[in-house]
Amino acid sequence: MLTVSEAIKAILTEVRRLPAVRIELSSALGRVLAEDVIADLDSPPFDKSLMDGFAVRSSDLAGGTATLRVVAEIMAGQVADKSVGRNEAIRIMTGAPIPEGADSVVPVEETRLLGGPQSEVVIEGAARPGRSILKRGESTRRGQRVLAAGRQIRPQEIGALAELGRAEVQAFRAPRVAVLATGDELVDATCAPGPGQIRNSNEPMLAAQMRQIGADPVSLGIARDETADLREKISRGLTCDVLLLSGGVSAGKLDLVPAVLAELGARQVFHKVQVKPGQPIWFGVWDSIVSRPLVGWIERSEAHGAATRWASHGSTHPTGGRDTGPCYVFGLPGNPVSSMVCCELFVRTAIRRMMGVEPAEPAPIRARLTHEHFSSGSRPTYHPAHLQMTAEGALVKLVKWVGSADLAATVEANCMVLFPEGNRSYAAGTEMDVFLW
Amino acid sequence: MLTVSEAIKAILTEVRRLPAVRIELSSALGRVLAEDVIADLDSPPFDKSLMDGFAVRSSDLAGGTATLRVVAEIMAGQVADKSVGRNEAIRIMTGAPIPEGADSVVPVEETRLLGGPQSEVVIEGAARPGRSILKRGESTRRGQRVLAAGRQIRPQEIGALAELGRAEVQAFRAPRVAVLATGDELVDATCAPGPGQIRNSNEPMLAAQMRQIGADPVSLGIARDETADLREKISRGLTCDVLLLSGGVSAGKLDLVPAVLAELGARQVFHKVQVKPGQPIWFGVWDSIVSRPLVGWIERSEAHGAATRWASHGSTHPTGGRDTGPCYVFGLPGNPVSSMVCCELFVRTAIRRMMGVEPAEPAPIRARLTHEHFSSGSRPTYHPAHLQMTAEGALVKLVKWVGSADLAATVEANCMVLFPEGNRSYAAGTEMDVFLW
Repeated sequence: MLTVSEAIKAILTEVRRLPAVRIELSSALGRVLAEDVIADLDSPPFDKSLMDGFAVRSSDLAGGTATLRVVAEIMAGQVADKSVGRNEAIRIMTGAPIPEGADSVVPVEETRLLGGPQSEVVIEGAARPGRSILKRGESTRRGQRVLAAGRQIRPQEIGALAELGRAEVQAFRAPRVAVLATGDELVDATCAPGPGQIRNSNEPMLAAQMRQIGADPVSLGIARDETADLREKISRGLTCDVLLLSGGVSAGKLDLVPAVLAELGARQVFHKVQVKPGQPIWFGVWDSIVSRPLVGWIERSEAHGAATRWASHGSTHPTGGRDTGPCYVFGLPGNPVSSMVCCELFVRTAIRRMMGVEPAEPAPIRARLTHEHFSSGSRPTYHPAHLQMTAEGALVKLVKWVGSADLAATVEANCMVLFPEGNRSYAAGTEMDVFLW
Repeated sequence: MLTVSEAIKAILTEVRRLPAVRIELSSALGRVLAEDVIADLDSPPFDKSLMDGFAVRSSDLAGGTATLRVVAEIMAGQVADKSVGRNEAIRIMTGAPIPEGADSVVPVEETRLLGGPQSEVVIEGAARPGRSILKRGESTRRGQRVLAAGRQIRPQEIGALAELGRAEVQAFRAPRVAVLATGDELVDATCAPGPGQIRNSNEPMLAAQMRQIGADPVSLGIARDETADLREKISRGLTCDVLLLSGGVSAGKLDLVPAVLAELGARQVFHKVQVKPGQPIWFGVWDSIVSRPLVGWIERSEAHGAATRWASHGSTHPTGGRDTGPCYVFGLPGNPVSSMVCCELFVRTAIRRMMGVEPAEPAPIRARLTHEHFSSGSRPTYHPAHLQMTAEGALVKLVKWVGSADLAATVEANCMVLFPEGNRSYAAGTEMDVFLW
């Protein structure tokens, strides 16, 4: 059975970055640049006033206060047709280009305008050379690489890209992720569960996790523990970049998922990882080129009269799908905490790699336990916990957790703490690896 | 002039939470619950197997290994019609209800099934009472408040809500935020700037900041420094819950924005805050009830033949707008770093309050400076910086910053460090208040 780090390595060996696409700036938030972005102009493109005030020659104010003649006014967006001569000033607005001759801008609050036909201004503030001026190219020089490929786009990158004239950018495509819950015991959230039934919580939770990461979830509903239904719904999921299956991968008699995946041509990379919760996780790859072509199977199904709701759409997959490239398949355990933990450790790693976010591996932060804890077991345990940043540093408190089906525990948590395998007591204050959710 | 904390207090005195609306679970991520959510059932609703294995009576295994007769099989979603008698076992799947008589589940990996018509199983693992069983109600009891109003919805809350049968929830409405850049110097990101011109970077940046917070941005483009254009575009913006204006609020002659806002009936709450960068920030409230009705102004404009592109839509505002309630207006400085800082300190506070996220105030975390820094000035300074979580705690490194128009500095930063007013040297290792971006 693989360790967690072996499983993550196996995932990263298989999973490839998605191709770059050209997208509008307004939809680029959270995506990763697929190109270097070079400044096409100096920024600012001219010496620029940072304040509303008067552009002056600092040498005129060597003696402190002075009264200067106002010879012009420059608004933002205008260029002065006059220069500033000796004992002259030009009124200037924030963002306007500094006129010839001036080397300082004194803010309007530190000046006093005198009336009269010959407009004059008393400069009371200091006129240090360079005051309130941003020099051409001081922020960015033309030709400079402002943003490198691989950078994730936040609001400030959106601002910088707009300043650089990039209304569109090359970014790695966001994965479409099909989410399918499996199990005869599941009913929809709108239903009252009958005897032995529970509501389908994993599918909406996984879809929300995907949305949060920046992927594009496609909910496929619930498949029954029955080969035909699983085959149809899994086939639909394989048209996406990733297929997340919840349930159906443990050792039970009705755990048909791995068998159906094999039948459809998915190659198993691993089944089971030494981890608690989440041990039964399955990971594999369905390759549209090397695997048995899905379309062949669909045609056969139709020939046999099987219900294939979507085959009638012709050659267009209703889920939007990808044109080429593999589908990465995760079979996640059905218990909600196991599903959450596996999604954070393994699925997130794959999604980050596909989106171009590197390093793609889960990155722990260090935090100190608030209470003593005794951990036992033959597998490393990821325990739901609550991290708080305090003046004394990062502190982490374990939440009450009655096992892998305890969804209420995840609601109290915002992270998980890793306890290595073995029986050991961890004193309050022990520094642990913590993975944020 | 107000201090930052006085300005934040003034904002929180004015800004009210938006009304609750009923939304689908699939669009609830990031929103705040407007109702307590009470469990309608015990969770799990029955004693539930956490593993695939055999349900047994622990008393039968007091002596260690035993061979038991397999009398039935229970799949998830089924209920046993038999109970487990002495020296009997029932095969059980993960998620299935524990049959009568059994008090322990031994995982299938620790058992050995014997063939033959009379099916028997050798139980090799320990059968502690309660093993691999989640008791009915152990995660959540019927009638228990699982989620309280005011909680922000993450993927695990989505999972819990689905488990509780809530396909729809009451959540506070997300604000629609109009974003309008102002200034004759601005050209669109798709244009090459002429002499004295720069590209419009603030509007896309602010829209992305709003999207990131969970608000719904409406981009209104660029308004010229001219009363008629400002009046038309500001009027459109006032139909949203929030209007963000970039530029046009400093002391210059062309800073017409406060005048136009006053004319349209907006009440100024403050203009200027003791903060660097961002001093000229304006905040006010336009109330659809007490302010001069906008629709009256539009009719008048039409009577005067003014171009009011959207008035032709009749009573429906093209921006979607709100039905009632005020519009909160922020006039943000035009320089991008000032705009960023003001948005994070002031606008984010208002948005959090409107969305129901409390506390709404900016919450600093503590981090230690990596390098010595001399800070000077009569205003507290928020300096762009890069925060890193290390094994030695939170460390913060100031980024090169050549002033409030230096957008490149924000791209290197992921936070800002507060330096109080006054001239003082801060040694490497000094603990500072840091605000994450």
